[in-house]
Amino acid sequence: MLSPVQYGVGARFTLSVYADDYVDVILGALGAADASGLEIDTGDVSTFIGGDERRILTYLREVIAHAASTGKHLSAQILLSRGCPGELQCELPAGVAAIGGDAVELEPTGIRARAHWSLYPLLDGGHDAEHMDGIEQGIEFARNNGTYSGSDHFATRLDGDLAAVLATVASGWLLVGRDVQHVTTHVTISINSPTLIDD
Amino acid sequence: MLSPVQYGVGARFTLSVYADDYVDVILGALGAADASGLEIDTGDVSTFIGGDERRILTYLREVIAHAASTGKHLSAQILLSRGCPGELQCELPAGVAAIGGDAVELEPTGIRARAHWSLYPLLDGGHDAEHMDGIEQGIEFARNNGTYSGSDHFATRLDGDLAAVLATVASGWLLVGRDVQHVTTHVTISINSPTLIDD
Repeated sequence: MLSPVQYGVGARFTLSVYADDYVDVILGALGAADASGLEIDTGDVSTFIGGDERRILTYLREVIAHAASTGKHLSAQILLSRGCPGELQCELPAGVAAIGGDAVELEPTGIRARAHWSLYPLLDGGHDAEHMDGIEQGIEFARNNGTYSGSDHFATRLDGDLAAVLATVASGWLLVGRDVQHVTTHVTISINSPTLIDD
Repeated sequence: MLSPVQYGVGARFTLSVYADDYVDVILGALGAADASGLEIDTGDVSTFIGGDERRILTYLREVIAHAASTGKHLSAQILLSRGCPGELQCELPAGVAAIGGDAVELEPTGIRARAHWSLYPLLDGGHDAEHMDGIEQGIEFARNNGTYSGSDHFATRLDGDLAAVLATVASGWLLVGRDVQHVTTHVTISINSPTLIDD
């Protein structure tokens, strides 16, 4: 059995805080979250997180919830990837099949999140599936847990508690990962937007 | 010949301004750009842009350059998609082959941008290509125009004038689109980051 890092499981994320004191908010949020067991590499464009899927998602929930607790408007851009451990190469040891997982559950935050979500099963020739099949599985999951709130161009709209939105994104990615080796997903999450005040 | 809209050509983007007066900066930038010939739909998570590829890229260049001219730290998250006009369905009229295009050139801005870029050729079973082939084509383009600055986990790092970074992202997407119908690309661009001051 490959470890998550050997299988290329990880995330990149960019936390954007729409306020003059964004440095304090971002550093405070990163400092408040439990990073044990994870590889964290913060750069000037985005932060890499490597490790077990559930630990990655728990960490992201903590960081974003802490930043959101300031009440500042923020957006989080998250990329999750699995099954392609190299930068340019997706080669795994011979005989390794797709490794997916069960749906993820995260403790509710009380923070309302709205998101645009895209899920990408990256098939190669010879695979017998259509790539939209996996995407429909993920959307069905979102319908069942109540976060689905419509399909826009190129993205599915999710609406709900931050924890439920993150869990939906991660669960779609893990469930499609059972059938497809290389799966990525991108989500843009908006929190504390002034346009939500009257909703 | 299908129109760009019929072929599903479009973008979603989120402009994040790390400043208390973000509303003024974002509305000013959107108002200053020439949106003629484009369908623009601004929502609370992201903005949709539909239309011809070159017009979309020229518009994005203008919006982001205008916001960057304030000197505020900002990030732009852009998704480009082609070949999948429906939200959940990628069906095109029978007989339509992949429609790509030539590389895009954009007028330089004098604004330095750093980015993390991911390119996704979305193949279906029966296609005779490997999905990483198209990605390597895109990276080769970035090496040739000088914006390539390394491969990080799950993303290629681009560094250069904002116009060159946007042109690289769009050109990789258009060149891969010659062979693959449904191609998406995501880029996170950082501008005016305080961590760049000493570089």
